[in-house]
Amino acid sequence: MSTLAKKIENIKYLNEQGLNDLAEELRALIIKTITQNGGHLASNLGVVELTMALFYVFNFPEDRIVWDVGHQAYVYKILSDRLEKFATIRQPGGISGFPKTEESIYDAFNTGHSSTSISAALGIATAKHLSGELGKVIAVIGDGALTGGMAFEALNHAGHLKEDLIVILNDNEMSIAPNVGAISQYLTNLRTAPKYRQKKIQIQNFVRKIPFVGEQMVKVAEKLKNSLKHLLMSGELFEQFGFTYIGPIDGHNLTKVIKILQRVRELSGPVLIHCITKKGKGYAPAEESPNNYHGIAPFTMEDEEEPSKDQTRSFTKVFGEKILAMAKEKPDIVAITAAMVSGTGLDQFSLSFPERFFDVGIAEEHAVTFAAGLAIAGRRPVVAIYSTFIQRAIDQIIHDVALQKLPVIFVLDRAGFVGADGETHHGLFDTALLAAIPNLVLMAPKNAQELEEMLELAYELKQPVVLRIPRGIADSNTLASKVELGKLETIQKGKDIAFLTYGSIYSQAQQAIKILENEYSCGLYNLRFAKPLDEVSLALIAKQYKLLVTVEEEMLIGGIGCMLNSILQKLEIITPTLSLGVDNCFVTHGSQKGLQELCKLDAVNIAEAVLWKIKGQHNV
Amino acid sequence: MSTLAKKIENIKYLNEQGLNDLAEELRALIIKTITQNGGHLASNLGVVELTMALFYVFNFPEDRIVWDVGHQAYVYKILSDRLEKFATIRQPGGISGFPKTEESIYDAFNTGHSSTSISAALGIATAKHLSGELGKVIAVIGDGALTGGMAFEALNHAGHLKEDLIVILNDNEMSIAPNVGAISQYLTNLRTAPKYRQKKIQIQNFVRKIPFVGEQMVKVAEKLKNSLKHLLMSGELFEQFGFTYIGPIDGHNLTKVIKILQRVRELSGPVLIHCITKKGKGYAPAEESPNNYHGIAPFTMEDEEEPSKDQTRSFTKVFGEKILAMAKEKPDIVAITAAMVSGTGLDQFSLSFPERFFDVGIAEEHAVTFAAGLAIAGRRPVVAIYSTFIQRAIDQIIHDVALQKLPVIFVLDRAGFVGADGETHHGLFDTALLAAIPNLVLMAPKNAQELEEMLELAYELKQPVVLRIPRGIADSNTLASKVELGKLETIQKGKDIAFLTYGSIYSQAQQAIKILENEYSCGLYNLRFAKPLDEVSLALIAKQYKLLVTVEEEMLIGGIGCMLNSILQKLEIITPTLSLGVDNCFVTHGSQKGLQELCKLDAVNIAEAVLWKIKGQHNV
Repeated sequence: MSTLAKKIENIKYLNEQGLNDLAEELRALIIKTITQNGGHLASNLGVVELTMALFYVFNFPEDRIVWDVGHQAYVYKILSDRLEKFATIRQPGGISGFPKTEESIYDAFNTGHSSTSISAALGIATAKHLSGELGKVIAVIGDGALTGGMAFEALNHAGHLKEDLIVILNDNEMSIAPNVGAISQYLTNLRTAPKYRQKKIQIQNFVRKIPFVGEQMVKVAEKLKNSLKHLLMSGELFEQFGFTYIGPIDGHNLTKVIKILQRVRELSGPVLIHCITKKGKGYAPAEESPNNYHGIAPFTMEDEEEPSKDQTRSFTKVFGEKILAMAKEKPDIVAITAAMVSGTGLDQFSLSFPERFFDVGIAEEHAVTFAAGLAIAGRRPVVAIYSTFIQRAIDQIIHDVALQKLPVIFVLDRAGFVGADGETHHGLFDTALLAAIPNLVLMAPKNAQELEEMLELAYELKQPVVLRIPRGIADSNTLASKVELGKLETIQKGKDIAFLTYGSIYSQAQQAIKILENEYSCGLYNLRFAKPLDEVSLALIAKQYKLLVTVEEEMLIGGIGCMLNSILQKLEIITPTLSLGVDNCFVTHGSQKGLQELCKLDAVNIAEAVLWKIKGQHNV
Repeated sequence: MSTLAKKIENIKYLNEQGLNDLAEELRALIIKTITQNGGHLASNLGVVELTMALFYVFNFPEDRIVWDVGHQAYVYKILSDRLEKFATIRQPGGISGFPKTEESIYDAFNTGHSSTSISAALGIATAKHLSGELGKVIAVIGDGALTGGMAFEALNHAGHLKEDLIVILNDNEMSIAPNVGAISQYLTNLRTAPKYRQKKIQIQNFVRKIPFVGEQMVKVAEKLKNSLKHLLMSGELFEQFGFTYIGPIDGHNLTKVIKILQRVRELSGPVLIHCITKKGKGYAPAEESPNNYHGIAPFTMEDEEEPSKDQTRSFTKVFGEKILAMAKEKPDIVAITAAMVSGTGLDQFSLSFPERFFDVGIAEEHAVTFAAGLAIAGRRPVVAIYSTFIQRAIDQIIHDVALQKLPVIFVLDRAGFVGADGETHHGLFDTALLAAIPNLVLMAPKNAQELEEMLELAYELKQPVVLRIPRGIADSNTLASKVELGKLETIQKGKDIAFLTYGSIYSQAQQAIKILENEYSCGLYNLRFAKPLDEVSLALIAKQYKLLVTVEEEMLIGGIGCMLNSILQKLEIITPTLSLGVDNCFVTHGSQKGLQELCKLDAVNIAEAVLWKIKGQHNV
């Protein structure tokens, strides 16, 4: 057993010096590993002391902890049972960058999306209460995640249920989109509170000394004492939700955090500990210039991953530049995102048009209905949100946008496999979730120019439009035909097999055709639109080929293959089809290329599947 | 023009007596119409004065108003431009029970689901600001809707943007599920505040008179004055969100409401007016015994519509009784709903097992993840939510339940057409939204006994299960076969046409068969499971018939017809299919039967569609 392993095993018995040494070793390990593997460096450096203190005071896994979002759980993974495996984090086949119950008994609940931890922890605490099980339940949530509506719903319910629940607000003053909203301002006020605190005793003493204190003055003094609590900026907001508020405390002062956790452990009912931490703590380059985090290759920061730094442009960048150019000509365009300014390519837009740019914080539901309000009053909102996060706002798209056929343009970034962030972050559901909704237009560009034309078209259309774009480089080939609503693009014609693809995955089909072309004459068609599907062209194509192969980087159920089959049935065309996509499973983390292979959506596997379909045997 | 119409036209010029008379006439009209047509009586009686005051002070439609949920907008409809049409409210072809922009220029934004109004109004206000348009924007939101997370997201953003926005909190102390959560307690505290208010001036005066006031005492007095605001229970919570808080005021005191609105009209930035109203105001039976609202036939209360009062049992009731019986035997069962206790049939459960019952308020997202927490810690949660409202929690089902394969049982009530509540409330999307999610089992019972067996099965399965049940009476026929995971039920065999149905719509197919049986030999199969679909049986059936007809009361795209077509393609079976369901459109309000006819899902239209498919001509 290594020295580090021994220290971790005996964390509860380390003295102050031992703890501080351990903190240093953990930081070194994390910096070394993450600068190699990529991942969320800064947020994990920020919780080293907090996580150590948690292990010092609590007994995991009897005590349970839910990490909100979960990208800050690396230290927890090391301290619980994954020191050995830590080098594999985010690597294909390695441990995940997020908590996973299937990975360890110490992980109480899987996370990935924001603002779920209080709900889940409250459920666990309630279940423990009902079954008479012992053990505390803790939720660790960042200040950014606190702007998500469901965190508020959970606070509200927790204050009502009064279960034993410890919420640790990990306030690093720098959520992925800093300083959005009133809550952010409120937390800033709280942070500055301690300096007023010191005055509290002075004032109280002074009041006691006021001469000629009559009956009424005593009452006033009493009220004054109570109201000082408010006056001096306590955690009023949280207390009004029924929480005991403790803080703010310095989250890097190990001794202090330990003392407070020890005290809180003895309390009952819902408690909120307001813990101030510093992202990147202990790593000079990050601490000193947090805005340059992105520059430190190869690791990526906090969901703001930019897939490419070289000359080629990502889909994200193409979108960002095109919408900026359009906004210069069209004053009614406004842009909205939910704490993903850079991740969705809107940085420059936000600088060029600050009045027309809205980062609502982690609040996808509000983002969509806010956009609907803007649209109904004459603006042309562009809502840029990751595919995986639009899952949060399906009802708002149905109920507030589609029902009123409002011209909101949704740009779903990170559609398809996202890579190392894994199963919680892939964008595989959007088409299946949105296809049934009337009045929507769904499209996906295969390359940069198509994305630009689609954005132009989306602006021309007077109805809601959803555009899905992947994480990664956008080819910049020209288009065989102009983008027209509901019309597919013919890339190449053939006689035997027609490939019908949706989005950038067309390149895999293109390569598959090269494998097959000696034996079969293949056509390649870029669908462009999942809704409306180009029924007229599809009918013609179906009659010209012996096999239709759809390829999509998303769920098969509810996808374009599924919709094609229904069109063929409706038109009474019996050409066989082969639908390739993600087959009813969640997909683990890995490289985007590796995941395409895993899901058999790479060129070789596509060719293989086609041959198997035709010949009933493996041939490649 | 009637006298009433004249008064409405001249509302701004009425004196106090005239206004009071008008209020009385409006109440009489509403009571008369709603006791005939059904609808939300009490909530509209509660906002008579508030709505009148709004018209007195503001200029609609230049000023814009968004009614949260919207079932309280009847008075607004009458006072704007729908007095004449009011008798048709909620009737087929008549005006809607909710705001509809397509119905009137006065309706600024469609609503139906809870907690959207602040987001939408903020969007409208921001758009007005950007385009330099004049006019105020108002959101009216109830105390119940305030527990929805997106209302919080919107408050947070509004406090940040500082746009001119008036939020009227219509606090009737009786949301559909009263007194859920900390917010509810907070509002109760605010309501009792005025009595302390009167003391405010006394205290201030007293402080000024304190003798020997030195330099420091002045400071203390200053701070005291500021903190008195907190001490005396002002709208601290809202002010911390950046709103100017005004209230609480008596929402039935017309003169006072008008005065306050006139003042607020001159303010800028976000303002929240806390308005106390009484549901059912002015209708003695409702005011006196609010708990007996349900008894007053034929009108129905606040989303708590019970479709049947006679001897037969609704699906809702069958569920409520069965889950209660199961809970008596199985101590790990817990039940969760989101402000729909009675509507989902859980009244008795909540009384029998108060410790195991959780009404989280209007907070579907939290409800689902809270259930996931309960499940991961060993409880067996049953989440009962209307189909239309589960749209709010799709991400939570994917991310918190399905990914971890947690055994949460979802019972989606009101799946299919709901009737008079119309397009925002039909439960038509659930299968399409959920089918692509791995690890889920989706089922729908055709009658009471099947529902009971399905609940038993759901409990046995160690994975997430979704059960969709319709609004309406459950037949109580016996079953042809026991419910088994992924197995369909053969109701009757035939040779020509196989009907494959999902849920209670089977009865329409059954009747359609009667129309067709002289000419064709028909089979009838009850699918029971949309996921997993019974591929083995479907393959056998497909080979035995000349035509397969699927019938489902939900969206066609992404529905079972769609999935059947993909199964047939996969199995290389070329039997033609006909998919009947809702064809890519939103469905208006009407009777459930009328809507089945409108969407051609009644027996006659089903038979007609089959004949058309076979013969290419109309024949019935």
